[in-house]
Amino acid sequence: MELEQILPEDIEKRSFEIIARELGDRTFPPEQFPVIRRVIHTTADFDYADNLVFSDNGVYLALEALREGVPIVTDTNMGKAGINKNALKKYKNEVYCFMSDPDVARKAKEEGTTRAWASMDKAAALGRDCVFAIGNAPTALIRLYELTMRGILNPRLIIGVPVGFVNVIQAKERIMTMDVPWIVGKGRKGGSNVAASICNALLYQLKDDEK
Amino acid sequence: MELEQILPEDIEKRSFEIIARELGDRTFPPEQFPVIRRVIHTTADFDYADNLVFSDNGVYLALEALREGVPIVTDTNMGKAGINKNALKKYKNEVYCFMSDPDVARKAKEEGTTRAWASMDKAAALGRDCVFAIGNAPTALIRLYELTMRGILNPRLIIGVPVGFVNVIQAKERIMTMDVPWIVGKGRKGGSNVAASICNALLYQLKDDEK
Repeated sequence: MELEQILPEDIEKRSFEIIARELGDRTFPPEQFPVIRRVIHTTADFDYADNLVFSDNGVYLALEALREGVPIVTDTNMGKAGINKNALKKYKNEVYCFMSDPDVARKAKEEGTTRAWASMDKAAALGRDCVFAIGNAPTALIRLYELTMRGILNPRLIIGVPVGFVNVIQAKERIMTMDVPWIVGKGRKGGSNVAASICNALLYQLKDDEK
Repeated sequence: MELEQILPEDIEKRSFEIIARELGDRTFPPEQFPVIRRVIHTTADFDYADNLVFSDNGVYLALEALREGVPIVTDTNMGKAGINKNALKKYKNEVYCFMSDPDVARKAKEEGTTRAWASMDKAAALGRDCVFAIGNAPTALIRLYELTMRGILNPRLIIGVPVGFVNVIQAKERIMTMDVPWIVGKGRKGGSNVAASICNALLYQLKDDEK
């Protein structure tokens, strides 16, 4: 196959055209489509056209939170690395990942739990409303569920896209019962790359805000 | 669905059992299987059982290179973040990503190319043999091909798993013609997470070396 001659700045546009063409006459709510399209762009996996589900007004409420400058908390440094730092500047959103923190590792060991679990406790200790972007650890989602139910956390959005084979589907189902904004990738699939691309798809929607 | 009660340290083992079960009676070369299994573990996508292809002795030659302490060069900071830092310690392998370097951005702009392309030139300037883990940019693979053909680079392994819709398949096909060790994910799929998980699967195979 010959290489296609294309300018670097046109690659994303061309990719989006191909994705739109392959989605055919399927339609999506207009505020959800940029998220779905970007996840397919990130994974080349059209399963996400079916897997991604959104709470009522989830995208609008998430954008509102980001406009208020709430921080994003991830469950992997990889997810943190994948969020576009320029796109965070407009509303001064910060990104935190506590997974590598020594106190988180110590607490997880003491309590016989996962670092992801302990890192959600550390996020709660920030005392701030946050967007949570969970692409790896179902235990992070389970802990978010518990902390929210107890009134300790008020998540402005939960992105629930951990990947895997053990307790992943169960954790996602739990998030989908919650009365907070959520975006969930049903089934086993997901990943830190998916979590980051959902964050980016939301942040890019703020680009044209007058500000 | 009820949550499965499982100790954190048993989750990976249980996941691997599920993957093995679902692969049924398919068999893989023993040195390739840990790579294929880990990529499926990372993505929950069994397509990789078919997509991942290896040059002759690719895994053995890659392990040899890693044992010599060659560095790993990635095309995203996300890929770099996903490589297990503890697993790098045994043979003191370093990981480089030049994508965010100002000189790379400047050179890409001047030459009308991509930062990924320019970052491979910067890797060549290290003057060292490297393992390349490319999970994002087909232009990085195309540049690696050119630099190797001109004798400027001697890659000890090319992991070619960029994801996407434009020139991705072509770039991977080019790598598969090369006379250096390679591991390629055929088709459109791949990603920084896949590139990192292939690195980790190789590094974990060195764990039991007597050293």
